[in-house]
Amino acid sequence: MTPLRVAIIGLGTVGTGVAKILLEHPDRMIRQAGRPIELKKAIVRDISRPRDITLPESVLSDDVQSVIEDDEIDLAVQLMGGIDPARKIMLSLLKAGKNVVTANKALLCEHGDELFQEARKQNRCIAFEAAVAGGIPIIHALGQSMTANQIVSIEAILNGTSNFILTEMLDKKRTYEDVLKQAQELGYAEADPAMDVDGTDAAQKLVILTQLAFGTKVNLEQFTRSGIDNLNLEDLEYADELGYKIKLLAVSKLINNELELHVQPTLVKKDRPLAAVDGAFNMVAMEGDAVGKTWYSGAGAGQMPTASAVVSDIIDIAIGRAQLGFDQLDLWQKQKPLPVCAADNITSRYYLRFHIEDKPHVFADIAAILGNNDISLASIIQHESSEDNVASNKSSAVQVPLVVMTHRTSRGNLISADKELEQLSSISAQRICLPVAD
Amino acid sequence: MTPLRVAIIGLGTVGTGVAKILLEHPDRMIRQAGRPIELKKAIVRDISRPRDITLPESVLSDDVQSVIEDDEIDLAVQLMGGIDPARKIMLSLLKAGKNVVTANKALLCEHGDELFQEARKQNRCIAFEAAVAGGIPIIHALGQSMTANQIVSIEAILNGTSNFILTEMLDKKRTYEDVLKQAQELGYAEADPAMDVDGTDAAQKLVILTQLAFGTKVNLEQFTRSGIDNLNLEDLEYADELGYKIKLLAVSKLINNELELHVQPTLVKKDRPLAAVDGAFNMVAMEGDAVGKTWYSGAGAGQMPTASAVVSDIIDIAIGRAQLGFDQLDLWQKQKPLPVCAADNITSRYYLRFHIEDKPHVFADIAAILGNNDISLASIIQHESSEDNVASNKSSAVQVPLVVMTHRTSRGNLISADKELEQLSSISAQRICLPVAD
Repeated sequence: MTPLRVAIIGLGTVGTGVAKILLEHPDRMIRQAGRPIELKKAIVRDISRPRDITLPESVLSDDVQSVIEDDEIDLAVQLMGGIDPARKIMLSLLKAGKNVVTANKALLCEHGDELFQEARKQNRCIAFEAAVAGGIPIIHALGQSMTANQIVSIEAILNGTSNFILTEMLDKKRTYEDVLKQAQELGYAEADPAMDVDGTDAAQKLVILTQLAFGTKVNLEQFTRSGIDNLNLEDLEYADELGYKIKLLAVSKLINNELELHVQPTLVKKDRPLAAVDGAFNMVAMEGDAVGKTWYSGAGAGQMPTASAVVSDIIDIAIGRAQLGFDQLDLWQKQKPLPVCAADNITSRYYLRFHIEDKPHVFADIAAILGNNDISLASIIQHESSEDNVASNKSSAVQVPLVVMTHRTSRGNLISADKELEQLSSISAQRICLPVAD
Repeated sequence: MTPLRVAIIGLGTVGTGVAKILLEHPDRMIRQAGRPIELKKAIVRDISRPRDITLPESVLSDDVQSVIEDDEIDLAVQLMGGIDPARKIMLSLLKAGKNVVTANKALLCEHGDELFQEARKQNRCIAFEAAVAGGIPIIHALGQSMTANQIVSIEAILNGTSNFILTEMLDKKRTYEDVLKQAQELGYAEADPAMDVDGTDAAQKLVILTQLAFGTKVNLEQFTRSGIDNLNLEDLEYADELGYKIKLLAVSKLINNELELHVQPTLVKKDRPLAAVDGAFNMVAMEGDAVGKTWYSGAGAGQMPTASAVVSDIIDIAIGRAQLGFDQLDLWQKQKPLPVCAADNITSRYYLRFHIEDKPHVFADIAAILGNNDISLASIIQHESSEDNVASNKSSAVQVPLVVMTHRTSRGNLISADKELEQLSSISAQRICLPVAD
């Protein structure tokens, strides 16, 4: 049995997990792949750094060129994050005739077309199960199990950090800042959590899923993305009162042959499976024209779940199955691009929350502006202001929250209403507007 | 592009769905499979029967031999139910050099080893995504996406009819008999629903999943199976009161290198994803040593969901991917068989429900018997008997329900306690005993 010889580029959390599975379970690898999988190199920046794994001598190296030039290495596991130098290294690996497994969603999102073209030119493949939703096999599901279907919609929770923060805020009645700090201490959130909490990470993953599901090219600039960083606990509580959870939802839907795409904190009815996904878990809800709705959930990140996805790709390549699948993937090339629906034309029900002065006419003014912009109201919550609040605010006008649920309207209508609302001195500057999932 | 030529054996609900996808979406098939998929034959018992699909001339036939003898046909979709003559036909198809796609779980459960050996001998493959959990791609997930893992446990809702009945009973406060009749009218339940409601269908699917997950041979005789046909609405209601849903749960777990297997109505905590699966849906919760827990759900039966799974297998064979995978499947042959834990040694918490006479000492007698058999009580529900009940039963002793939740104990202890309880004249004959999921 010829072994499959593997190099890991980047021995961080996930890379260490991959090395652990390969080294601790050689028999499992032979049973599943039909041949041994040999870890020949692991490339790191700093060889001297203490690590939480013991590698065979000669495996650890800081010289990526030694992998590129080693013809015995069949497959490179590219686990460097970011765009540069990850992009150049991946191109070199492909040019050197190696198959590549990667978890780098940012790189695939930004430069997928270039990388996939190079792989095809070299008759090699790129496998990327680990790039989206960690241990959940959503790439296999889309690229292989759903091939009988025209995919109709994908709705997904793709960022575990955001979902953890939203869950903790509501369950423990804590502020965003407080929970974010804890998530960083627990290692859920990066030291710089911006890409997680502003929706970028989820949007990059949505780009990959959309290209795979709809065989079309899309990019981050074509759709609205917003994160959880503007949410207050009170919004989670009002949503709860109305029968919803707020989730950072990534949505990709085919409507009248146009793609509707967005990543936004979204109100999801509590009886839907997506609403029940708590903590750092991910879920993808996918609808196909034959299969109907299917749901996939599990750990969306973390060392061993992500390593599980990486190693399943390595085994797929050892068997030769990934190569056959790669040639058929509807990704970055085959179909005509589908038009993306202009953000302003996307319609939805909306949750609006204002802080307004508790005095006559304010609500009438708001209702008039919404009505003039073709936005009709489905329900309203305004609780009585507490006596404390009234007492402590004697000098100034008392601010009270007002929550409005609208009927279906376009984002364009909402934006133009918001411009008018901004002019009302009786409304405070922070106005929250969130879509409600269908 | 050489087309893949396909014959469908059995044009019932699912067969018609498969034919519809192949005939209505030839472009999709080419895009996904890289070549046309041509429906060359559809074999039925009675050609004259009116059908809800129009087939090209020359496709419909009642002569299965014409498929076996047609060397142009590469692949047979075997959708005949039952064991005979399905088994013989499938062997003939394999011997004639055809790859086979099937949804027949009973046949795979009973004769999988013979069929798989024949397929390997002929260098052909059997694909069976549709045999378990309909449109949910659980066979792909287990056989391909989880290969990096040692599977630790599978807990699944695999019979949509049973789940539909349980959901309707509790939601609408209806009796088992009443809902079963409706399920038959809706087409969810067969005219003879015995295999669905007595746990056999779920057990057959569990055998397939277990063999795939653990690479071991098991059969129906090795484990406890019971169905929902003995449950009363009151049990669903007591479970609800205690914070549980009752689900027909198929369980396969690796504990101390022994397999624990059973199919039983089981109490599942309401906050678990399995408890939230309502109606005719299925869910598989699977735990691997690297990936942790993952969940898969969707339509477990029905024309188009099952056809979606069948067609994804056809496409996999057209690409050549299924063949590579089949050679690696840990199924019916490779590993040493794992021992199956004797039913009496399996431990669990239990829900016990009795109808007892409302008079002194009855509860003390029950508690003594349970205690003598090493069963300790975690909680008890006994509601006051209503005045009506008391009034209408003046002549005889009033029967009241008693519900006991036990701490963890073995099934053996429970059975020996039950033998003693049977002797108590103050307990009515119907005693319900259900495990509680961990």
